Amino acid sequence: MTLDQLKSYHSTRTDSICPGHPEIEHEGIEVTTGPLGQGIANAVGLAMATKHLAATYNKPGFDLVNNKTWCMIGDACLQEGVGLEAISLAGHWRLDNLIVMYDNNQITCDGSVDLANTEDVNAKMTASGWEVLEVADGDHNVEGIVAALVAARSSKSGKPVFINIKTTIGVGSKVAGDAKAHGAALGADDVANLKKVAGFDPEQSFVVPDAVYDFFSDVKARGRELESEWDGLVAAYGCEYPDLADEFALRVKGEFPEDWTKIIPTKEELPTAPTASRKSAGLVCNPLAARLRNMMVGTADLSPSVNMIWKGKTDFQHPDLRPTCGITGDYTGRYIHWGIREHAMAAISNGLAAFKKGTILPVTSSFFMFYLYAAPAVRMGALQRLQAIHIATHDSIGTGEDGPTHQPIELAALYRAMPNLLYIRPADCEETAGAFVAALSATETPSIISLSRQNLTQYPQYSRREGVAKGAYVFIEQEDADVTLIGVGSEMCFAVRAREILREKHNVKARVVSFPCQRLFEKQSREYKAEVLQLRTGIPRVVIEAYAVNGWERYADAGYSMSSFGHSLPGAAAYEYFGYTDELIASRVGEFVREVKEQGMEQFRGDFRDLNVTQH
Amino acid sequence: MTLDQLKSYHSTRTDSICPGHPEIEHEGIEVTTGPLGQGIANAVGLAMATKHLAATYNKPGFDLVNNKTWCMIGDACLQEGVGLEAISLAGHWRLDNLIVMYDNNQITCDGSVDLANTEDVNAKMTASGWEVLEVADGDHNVEGIVAALVAARSSKSGKPVFINIKTTIGVGSKVAGDAKAHGAALGADDVANLKKVAGFDPEQSFVVPDAVYDFFSDVKARGRELESEWDGLVAAYGCEYPDLADEFALRVKGEFPEDWTKIIPTKEELPTAPTASRKSAGLVCNPLAARLRNMMVGTADLSPSVNMIWKGKTDFQHPDLRPTCGITGDYTGRYIHWGIREHAMAAISNGLAAFKKGTILPVTSSFFMFYLYAAPAVRMGALQRLQAIHIATHDSIGTGEDGPTHQPIELAALYRAMPNLLYIRPADCEETAGAFVAALSATETPSIISLSRQNLTQYPQYSRREGVAKGAYVFIEQEDADVTLIGVGSEMCFAVRAREILREKHNVKARVVSFPCQRLFEKQSREYKAEVLQLRTGIPRVVIEAYAVNGWERYADAGYSMSSFGHSLPGAAAYEYFGYTDELIASRVGEFVREVKEQGMEQFRGDFRDLNVTQH
Repeated sequence: MTLDQLKSYHSTRTDSICPGHPEIEHEGIEVTTGPLGQGIANAVGLAMATKHLAATYNKPGFDLVNNKTWCMIGDACLQEGVGLEAISLAGHWRLDNLIVMYDNNQITCDGSVDLANTEDVNAKMTASGWEVLEVADGDHNVEGIVAALVAARSSKSGKPVFINIKTTIGVGSKVAGDAKAHGAALGADDVANLKKVAGFDPEQSFVVPDAVYDFFSDVKARGRELESEWDGLVAAYGCEYPDLADEFALRVKGEFPEDWTKIIPTKEELPTAPTASRKSAGLVCNPLAARLRNMMVGTADLSPSVNMIWKGKTDFQHPDLRPTCGITGDYTGRYIHWGIREHAMAAISNGLAAFKKGTILPVTSSFFMFYLYAAPAVRMGALQRLQAIHIATHDSIGTGEDGPTHQPIELAALYRAMPNLLYIRPADCEETAGAFVAALSATETPSIISLSRQNLTQYPQYSRREGVAKGAYVFIEQEDADVTLIGVGSEMCFAVRAREILREKHNVKARVVSFPCQRLFEKQSREYKAEVLQLRTGIPRVVIEAYAVNGWERYADAGYSMSSFGHSLPGAAAYEYFGYTDELIASRVGEFVREVKEQGMEQFRGDFRDLNVTQH
Repeated sequence: MTLDQLKSYHSTRTDSICPGHPEIEHEGIEVTTGPLGQGIANAVGLAMATKHLAATYNKPGFDLVNNKTWCMIGDACLQEGVGLEAISLAGHWRLDNLIVMYDNNQITCDGSVDLANTEDVNAKMTASGWEVLEVADGDHNVEGIVAALVAARSSKSGKPVFINIKTTIGVGSKVAGDAKAHGAALGADDVANLKKVAGFDPEQSFVVPDAVYDFFSDVKARGRELESEWDGLVAAYGCEYPDLADEFALRVKGEFPEDWTKIIPTKEELPTAPTASRKSAGLVCNPLAARLRNMMVGTADLSPSVNMIWKGKTDFQHPDLRPTCGITGDYTGRYIHWGIREHAMAAISNGLAAFKKGTILPVTSSFFMFYLYAAPAVRMGALQRLQAIHIATHDSIGTGEDGPTHQPIELAALYRAMPNLLYIRPADCEETAGAFVAALSATETPSIISLSRQNLTQYPQYSRREGVAKGAYVFIEQEDADVTLIGVGSEMCFAVRAREILREKHNVKARVVSFPCQRLFEKQSREYKAEVLQLRTGIPRVVIEAYAVNGWERYADAGYSMSSFGHSLPGAAAYEYFGYTDELIASRVGEFVREVKEQGMEQFRGDFRDLNVTQH
C-alpha cells in the first residue's frame, strides 16, 4: 500500500485499493468486512482454522500453524445477532488463539450506545466463556493497550480473550465523543488542529514521520526471516512426515489431494428406488468428506435431517469438553455442530474458507428456508469468491407438515439472482452427483445444493451429471414436439408424468428439459441454449416448479408455479392442495398448447402465462 | 378448538386448525411461530405494545391496557441471533411485563445442547438486564412452576423475568432425555405406557378427564366477567376522557384517526429541485408520524441517514433511563432506537403489529442492503398479514463509497418474489408520496419502500402518485414509438435522458413507463397491462435498473442491468463504472431497436437480451 494508494480513498479512481470498507481482493486484507457483525464471525472462523490445522498437522517440534487471530470490533459487533452467535461458539470451542479488541467508544450513528444498549458487556462475555481484560484509557494509554495485548497473547485461561478498551470517538477533535465523528469528515480546521496537538505540521498531509519509518524499518527483514524460518521448518517436516507434508502442501495450494470425481458413486452405484435428494446428497458427499480432508462439514442442528454424517467422522470440539459433557471430538474434527445458528454458521465458514484460501472447504447444512437467516453471510462468501457448499434440504412445499414457515417459495429467486453463486436444484441422485461435481469444481464460488425432504422418482434413463454442469439439458427428447416442459428439482416428476398424460389424453407431444441451475446455463453458448430451449422452432415452453416463478420468464412462456405461501399438510397433500397433480398440470398445459396453436405464439409475446390457477 | 380439530394435527385435512406450527389465522394464536428465535422477539414486541398503549391511554383508576406477556422458549431461542438481539432490547427497555419460561431440557435435534453451547445462560440473562428465577425439577414440581410464575407476575425488580425450568424431554417415555423425543412420534407402545404411568386408560385416546373439565369449568364465566368488567371500564373512561377514548376505540378497530391522505404533501408542496428519495420519504412520512399515533417509527441506528425523525418526536425508552444515561423518552414515545439489530427490529415489529392487529403500525428503517439481515422477520410479517412499512434507503449502486457490501444488486429479486409484500421503488418525491399511500392502504400487507441515497431529478410533469397505486404507468407517451423504456426508481433519470438522446442521435422514438411496484401491477386488468406495456403493437420493451434483472423478463424483452456485485466509488462514478451513462444506454438501446426492426420482434421471443455489456 503506497501513500498514493492511500490518497485514493473515497476518490473516483477505479484503480483504488482503498475502498470504503476493506476488501479481500487487496493484499493483506484477510476478509471483506462492512456489514456489521460479519467480521467477528469471520475472525472466529480464522481462529478455528488455525486450531484445526494445528491439531491436524503440527507435530512435536513442528508448529506449522500457530498464529493468533486478532480482531478489532466496535459496538455493532456486540449488538448484531450474527456476532452474538459467533461469540457464543468461540467461547464454547475455547478458541484461546482469538483476541478481540473492543473499541469501546460508546457511540453509534444515532448517538450514545445507551440509546439502545445498557447491558453489562463484560459480564455477558464472561458468561459466554471469554476471558475479559480492560484498558481504562484507550485514548492515551498506549502502553496499557500494549500490555493488554501481551497479556492476551500469553494468557493461559484457555479462553478467547476480550479486551474492553475505553476510547473516545474523534478524540482531540471538535466532535470528540459525538456521533458526528462517526461518518462525516472532520473538516480542514479541525484536522489542522488535531495535527498540531499531535505534534504534526498542520500544513502537510500524507506524511509519515521519520521516527515512524525508523520504528518499522526492520519489519521487512523480520518478515523475510520469519518466512524463511517457516520454510525451513516445513522442509524439515517434509523429511520427518512426508505424507502429511505432501497433503499440507497440496491444501495450501488449494488443491484436492486426489482425483476426487472418482470418489463420487457412479450412476450404476446410485439407488434407482425413490430416494429423497437429501439422502442422495449424503450418498455423494459422505464418501467425499471421508476422503478429502479439506472438507469441514457442519450443520445448524439438523444432523438427523440432512444426512451429512460420514462413518468415522470426528466432531470439531475442544478436547477438554469431553470429561465435562460426555461429548466426543477434538480440534482435528471435521464435523461441526453449529447449534441453531445458521447465520454464524455461514459467516464463520467464510472465515474458514478465507484462511489461506483453498486450505479448508466449508460445507454447511440446514433446511433451505433457513438459508434466509444465513443469507447475509452467504452473500459475503459470494462477494469474496470464497468456495463453500451449502446443503439446503427440505426445499419445497413437499416439506409438508412444518407448514408455510418452513416451505420456501421465494428464496430461490434471491439465490438465482445473487452474483457469483450457484443455486443448484437436482432432480434425482444422478443430478445430485452432478451438483456436487459443479460445486466442488467452482473454486471461486459458493454453491447452494437444494434438496428435497421427500422421496423422488429416479430417472437413470434420462438424468446425466454432465447435464448439470451445463445448467440445463434435454431430459426427454421428442420429435415434432408441441411443447417443452421444463422440470426442476423435486418437481421433475410432474413434468415427466404430465408428458405421458399429455400424449395419452390431450394428443400433445411434449419434450422435457431438466433445469437444475440457471447460472450454469447462462454460461453456455447461444447455440446450446437455443437448442435446449428450442428457440428456433418456437414451440412454447412451460416451467414446472413449486416456487414463485420470478426469473423463469427468461426461459419459459408460461409457468406452473406458486403465487402464495405454502400450507401445513403432509408433503403429497400439500402438492395436491396447490394444484400440483399430474392430471391438472397436463390439462392446463394442454389448454395452453391449444391456445398457442390457434392464435400463434406471436400473440403470447410479452404475456407470460401463469397456468396454476389453484388459489388459496 | 375441538377434540375433532386436535385430531387433525399432521393429517391431510385441509380444514385443520392444528398446523405443524401455531399459525395466527386461528383464534387464540397471537403470532405464527416456527422459525427459531422469532417467537421471543415477537413476545418482546407484544410486551412493548402493552407498555406503550398503557403509557399512552391508561389514567389513574383506568388501567385499560395492563396485560403481561408470557412466552415459552426452548434452547434455540437462546442461540439464534435474532433471539439474542431481542433479549438485549427487552433488558434495555426494562419490560417487566414480559415473562419468559425457558423449557430447559438441554436437548436439540443433534443431541445434547453441550454439543454447541456451554455458556452460563443465567449469567448471560442477568448481564442482559433480566431477572432470573429457577425451577429445578420442571418434570414433576408443578407447584414449583406455579410458584415461579406467581413470583414473576408480582416481581418488583423492574426487569423482564427469565424462568429457567429444568425439564426432561419426553419425560417418562423410552426416549426420555434423548434427541429422538424431539420430532419423531413415540410409537403406540410407549404412548400406552406413558398413559398408564400418568393414570390414564391406555386404550383411550383424545379423552379429557372429568377432573380437568371441572378444574376449567368456570373459565368461560370468568372470561365473560373479565370482559364485561373491561367493557365497563372503557365506557367509564369514555365519559372521563372522551377524546382519548375515541382515539383508542378507533385504533383498536385498526383504523386511522383522520383522513390521513390529506396529511401527505401535495405534488405542489413537494420539492422540484433534485432530491434524494430518502429525503422525499421524510417529507411524506414525518407529517404522518406526527399526526397518526398508530405509527411507531424506528431505525436500526441510522437516524441521520434515513430522515425518519419528526419534530417533537419522543423516544420509546424506560423513563428511569434518563437520569442514568442522559437519554430522553418514555413509554409513550413512538420513535424507537433499535440499535444495530435489523433482524430483531423487524421481528419485534411483527409483535407490535400483532398486538390487537391495527392498533400499532410499525415503521422500520435501515439501508436496503441490511433488510437482508431482517428478511426472515419481514417474511414472517408477510406470512401473517401484518402491516408494517420498511423504509429501505441507499438502495442502489448510487450508495457509492461504502462499496459492494452495501450496494444491493439481487435483494429486490427476493422481495419482488415474496408473497403478500409490496416492494415499491419510487422515482421521485411524487412517487414516494404514492408509495406511502399504497403502503398505508395495504392493511394486510407489509411494504418495503426502497429509496435512494443520492439526489434524484424530479419529474412533476410526468410522475403521478395514482400511477404508483397501479404498480406501473405511462410516464412519457410517444406516438409511433419504436421502443418502451421502463425506468425504475433512481434509474428513471437514465430512461428519461436516454429517450432524448435516442431521438436526437439515433432517430429512435421512445416512450417511457415508470414501474415502481411489480406486485401492484400484477393486480391490474389485462387491458391496463397490455396498454402500459404496449403488448398489442409489439414494440420492444427495455427495462433500465441497476439490479440483477431476474424477474423483469416478464415485462421486458431486454434489460440494462447489473450482472455482478457493485464497486466502491462515489455514487455517480459507480454508475459510470458499470455503464450507466445516458449515451451508452441510448446507444445500446438504439442498436437493439435497429436489430429488432431488421429481424422482426418474433426472432427475439424467448431470447431476452442483456444490453449492458460493461463487465467488471
